[in-house]
Parts: sequence; C-alpha cells; structure tokens
Amino acid sequence: MTGQPVDFYFDFSSPYGYLASHRIDHIAANHHRETLWRPILLGAVFKVSGGRPLSESPLKWEYSTRDFARSARLANVPFALPEPFPFSGVAASRAFYWICEKDRFLAKDFAKAVFHAAFAEGLDMGAVEQVAAVADRVGVEPKSLLTALGEPAVKEMLKIEVDEAIARGVFGSPFVIVDGEPFWGHDRLPEVDAWLASGGW
Amino acid sequence: MTGQPVDFYFDFSSPYGYLASHRIDHIAANHHRETLWRPILLGAVFKVSGGRPLSESPLKWEYSTRDFARSARLANVPFALPEPFPFSGVAASRAFYWICEKDRFLAKDFAKAVFHAAFAEGLDMGAVEQVAAVADRVGVEPKSLLTALGEPAVKEMLKIEVDEAIARGVFGSPFVIVDGEPFWGHDRLPEVDAWLASGGW
Repeated sequence: MTGQPVDFYFDFSSPYGYLASHRIDHIAANHHRETLWRPILLGAVFKVSGGRPLSESPLKWEYSTRDFARSARLANVPFALPEPFPFSGVAASRAFYWICEKDRFLAKDFAKAVFHAAFAEGLDMGAVEQVAAVADRVGVEPKSLLTALGEPAVKEMLKIEVDEAIARGVFGSPFVIVDGEPFWGHDRLPEVDAWLASGGW
Repeated sequence: MTGQPVDFYFDFSSPYGYLASHRIDHIAANHHRETLWRPILLGAVFKVSGGRPLSESPLKWEYSTRDFARSARLANVPFALPEPFPFSGVAASRAFYWICEKDRFLAKDFAKAVFHAAFAEGLDMGAVEQVAAVADRVGVEPKSLLTALGEPAVKEMLKIEVDEAIARGVFGSPFVIVDGEPFWGHDRLPEVDAWLASGGW
C-alpha cells in the first residue's frame, strides 16, 4: 500500500454510510490505499452544523426511505430500515474504538457486523446488549466489552474522534477525506475513485 | 419522442440545478424523451419541508462551495458563485412561465440564459432589470416582460407550479421525476439515466 490512508467517516445509524461501507475498501484498494474507518456521532455533529436527522424532515424523509431501498437494490446489497430509526451509535462506536486499540482489522470486521445487523437484519444496534451480541459474532468477548463501554478512557476515545471530525469539517455520513480533499455522501464515491486515480482536477 | 416527458424541477438559484441543466436534456433525448423544465422556489418549499439554504448551514456551506466548483470542473462547465447568493428566483421563474405560455422552446432558451448569467457570469439574477436584460438576449421584448411580471395571472402561474411541486414531494433542486419515480440531486442523474433505460429496478 502506498500513500496516506483514506479516511472513511460514518455514523453507524446512517443508511448511506452502510451502503458506502460495501464499496470504500474496494475503491481504495484499487488505488493501493488503505482505509481508516472512523465512526462518529451525527447527533454531536448536528449540534455544530445545525443539521438534523432525515427522519425529522418532512418530504425529504419520504423520499429518503424510498431512495435507501432503491440505492441498495441498485448496489445489490440487502436493506432493512431498523426500528427505531435513527438509533444511537454511541455504544457501537465506543466498542469499535476499544476493539481498534487491540486489533484494527477485527474492529473493521466488527463495524461490518454492526452495519449488517442494523441494515440487513433490522436489529436495534442502539441497544448495548445487541452491540455485545454482535461483537460476540466476530469473536470479541462480550463481557469484557460491556465492562469497557463504561470506562472513561473508552468514552474519551470516541469524544476525541468526534471533535477531530468536526474540526476537519465533517458534517454528514458517509464522509471521505482523500489527501485532505473532502467528499460527502455515498453518491460521491465515483468522485473519490476518480480523485484517487488522478490526484485531483 | 415516446413516453411521458421527464419533469425537471429546479430553483434558478441552485448551483446543482445549473449543473443538471447541462445534462438533463441529453439524458432524456438518449431515451427518446422530452423534458419539462419547471422552475420552482426553494424558499416556499423550505417552509413546508423545514429545509434551509446551504449558505446558512455551518460546515456544510464551506464544503458545498468547494463541491460546486469541483463538480463544475469535472463536468467541464464554467462556474462562478453569484453575489448575492442565494438570490431570489421569483422574477426569473415568473418570466419563464410567462414566456412558456407563448413558446416553450424559447422559455427553455431563456432558462439556460438565466443559469449562464448567474453561474457562469456571476450576475445577480434576483434583480428584475437583470432578468429583463437576459430575456432581451434571447429575443424576448424586455418592456413587455417587465409589465407581465406585475400581473396577478403571471404570479399565479408560478404559485400553482410551486404548490403542485410540493404536493408531488419535491423538496430540493434539481429534482427529476421519471414516470412517477423521484430523483433528488445532480448526483442522481446517472440513476435517472439507468431508470429511463431499464424502466426501474
């Protein structure tokens, strides 16, 4: 692998983040790049940006639920909207960074398992017990995880990530940064691919 | 031409509407479809949807100005952000529908001239005199236009269009409807193309 890793920011509760998670590694690998998966909390971001969840936007919400399913069908990816939606990504994100400290490949497997549980199975990944159960699926000991989730140092890791993301201008999910160049949205992945290929335009 | 026309909704002050205006007719024509260009007012839409101008969204606005220019470079389309931004599309939209009653091809030429004046030349197309001057460029008599803009029947034409757009779920610009299927955003044009080719998925 050559060059800086590609930053892949997402909220676990983001359907377009889920869709992008199926493609970002392939795109980066085609250009000999690694990816850094960085879960964040859109709720915290929205406090700065003034954004709000799609589910609270009349007209846009009806369109979005249609577009989630349509985009997933086009990408040939299973899709179910979890109940409730959006869910809190706090527990899953803290778990991610805790796992990542020990094994970043395992953390990525965990993230994929969380996305699948939420958006292919429709499970409530805002629930701590569900996060522990999904961690168990990829070989993370659930009891240790549940203990870790309450630790101040683990909470702090996520807070630092969210603050850094906001400082870098991240305001949505997915949000990809390639060599300092920001790309917002699942629909910008072709541009991410082109930017990696060309170095910009 | 076969099939229903493709509805192309946009606000004259929308940079992504401007970008889409360069592609929508080609995409439709490739599938033997006509387009109906339908300017609307995002300000009126936002009162229903709770949306707000990009320029009032911290973080998102900085990203957006970068993305406008980057997307325009990629599409090989000239781009300048007009001052002030956003501008009111009221005069240009009323002018469009007034011209359209007499000649819908001329109305489309006028719309292209307005977009060009705003986003290639950076002119303030919110100003009634500027709208009249641009109408003059495409052969519309500016004095008649200025008189028409004050007529209740002309105001009403735009109001009816905006109300119908909202009733159809239009909440942004550009917004394309193909055989009842809605597509929001310049970045959905590849999907519009694919939908026209396949009849859906």
